[in-house]
Amino acid sequence: MVRVGINGYGTIGKRVADAVCEQPDMELVGVAKTSPDYVAQQAVNRNYELHVPADYMERFENTPIALAGTTEELVEKCDIIVDATPGGIGKKNKSLYERLDTPAIFQGAEDDDIVDQSFNARANYSEATDAQYTRVVSCNTTGLSRLITPLDDAFGIEKARITLIRRGGDPSQSSRGPIDDILPDPVTLPSHHGPDVNTIFPDLDIDTLGVKVPATHMHLHAVNFTFEEQPTVDEIRDLLSEESRLFLIPEWFEIDGAGKLLDLADDAGRPRGDIWENCIWEKSFTVEGNDFYCFQGIHQEADVVPENIDAIRAMNQMADQQESIELTNNTLGMGIK
Amino acid sequence: MVRVGINGYGTIGKRVADAVCEQPDMELVGVAKTSPDYVAQQAVNRNYELHVPADYMERFENTPIALAGTTEELVEKCDIIVDATPGGIGKKNKSLYERLDTPAIFQGAEDDDIVDQSFNARANYSEATDAQYTRVVSCNTTGLSRLITPLDDAFGIEKARITLIRRGGDPSQSSRGPIDDILPDPVTLPSHHGPDVNTIFPDLDIDTLGVKVPATHMHLHAVNFTFEEQPTVDEIRDLLSEESRLFLIPEWFEIDGAGKLLDLADDAGRPRGDIWENCIWEKSFTVEGNDFYCFQGIHQEADVVPENIDAIRAMNQMADQQESIELTNNTLGMGIK
Repeated sequence: MVRVGINGYGTIGKRVADAVCEQPDMELVGVAKTSPDYVAQQAVNRNYELHVPADYMERFENTPIALAGTTEELVEKCDIIVDATPGGIGKKNKSLYERLDTPAIFQGAEDDDIVDQSFNARANYSEATDAQYTRVVSCNTTGLSRLITPLDDAFGIEKARITLIRRGGDPSQSSRGPIDDILPDPVTLPSHHGPDVNTIFPDLDIDTLGVKVPATHMHLHAVNFTFEEQPTVDEIRDLLSEESRLFLIPEWFEIDGAGKLLDLADDAGRPRGDIWENCIWEKSFTVEGNDFYCFQGIHQEADVVPENIDAIRAMNQMADQQESIELTNNTLGMGIK
Repeated sequence: MVRVGINGYGTIGKRVADAVCEQPDMELVGVAKTSPDYVAQQAVNRNYELHVPADYMERFENTPIALAGTTEELVEKCDIIVDATPGGIGKKNKSLYERLDTPAIFQGAEDDDIVDQSFNARANYSEATDAQYTRVVSCNTTGLSRLITPLDDAFGIEKARITLIRRGGDPSQSSRGPIDDILPDPVTLPSHHGPDVNTIFPDLDIDTLGVKVPATHMHLHAVNFTFEEQPTVDEIRDLLSEESRLFLIPEWFEIDGAGKLLDLADDAGRPRGDIWENCIWEKSFTVEGNDFYCFQGIHQEADVVPENIDAIRAMNQMADQQESIELTNNTLGMGIK
């Protein structure tokens, strides 16, 4: 049993904590956060031992929350830390992990240069074996990596061009925008997504454009790959339907966007309405010469969760790639029917 | 065991179906809908026997969905039907229920004149005992009824004035608006809510104003009651905190709106992220002379679900008011901590 701690209990941290609890080969030692609020109370209600940096403990004094200890004490007790603090905080936390000689997994909002490797389970699982610090790439890069790997292996991607239409914030982030606008974000190319994809596929020729819209539930990718070969739509569909973390939306499901996808997730009994899979519209599959086009939806709160679980296994050499992906999939309930 | 059928498997129908399955004294015979889509597939995945009106069966022919029979066959097999079809369709369905002598519960979007009684578990449970047809009032009227009953009993409501800031549509209703507007809706007074509340409290003096905004997750009520007495805020808080379907949001939870409320519901492990309770901001409680003010959020997809369960028990004389409410609360997991 690998003893896991979660530092940062927000959108990603709370989901990774739940997922760790589902694994037969992992134990959740505790979680750490800094603010006393409903999220903290619900962590305690789930019987997660709540830790707080020593200089934040005072904040919790006038609340009914019982603290289990300091964040440093949590790190001391763990074999590995999943750091899901807001972007930039992970970098500051790294010195604590170094001092206590504890391996850590950071999230995609941290810079690539603070880790030994950037991770995606489908693309480069085995490269994490020797890493003391790794980084699960962002939700968007995770979604792209899952799509690129099988297609590049089968048909060779000569060039990738992706427009990412991104949600402005998560549902609970009430201070985010835009309210009524469509922002080129950034207006210069490439958006950070292309270089981030290159942390997984160093040799891939990829251009990315980022856009921000008034939505909270998903990102949408307008995808174009120019292949070295000329596959048919059927060949592409057959190939991608074999991938366990790609959900090809059947045409007859009559799903037109993120709202219905999350309604589907609720119907499917998903915890928190989470969709861990890329949601790819089969109906959008189009081949023009060597060019392939499609749309995919990415649930920004959820798709990196199984990747964090696999990263824990990879770094601790607990299973090979296929074993870990299958175990994660089975324990979470991957696959929408 | 009362045999229950659900006619109309949308936002409310699917939730009532799930809730019926949790009841020890009820059996879900099956559900009925008209469209082959992801919602139908997920109903089948939940092992709900899916029924379709005879003249809609052809629609399902090119899908993998196995139908259990016609809607008429479903009604024949049931002791009671919960009709959760879109507003106005229930009225058309009534002749089928009459022909097969099957009692039915309609939803708030149906006119009051097609039923013997309008229902709210807290306000008038026992009045449904002799009804062949009842109607669970709308999400907004349900939320208001739960608040009015204890306050009117304790302090006497001389006058109620409610502004209802309503979500434009449910999350999956991608063709609804507004996108970026604030609509007086209707611009004339009263909105339909006041008269609807009067179906539960015939003598209550209530004025309501309706507004529609670009949101999908909740309605918000700006509430004012003029009392006959002058209670203190503490007296009101103590009174309302005894009510099992009112959730008083603690100040330290730091919840500023619907997004965080639904995040809380996910954290609390609620199925579909449902909040069955009125969500009332304690911090908003204000008394000025005989006037009381507060804000409450109403999860439009969820709050009528326990009421439908109680209506089934009331009409079938399976339990008295307190027994039914307690059983429904316990089986669903009412109460947020």
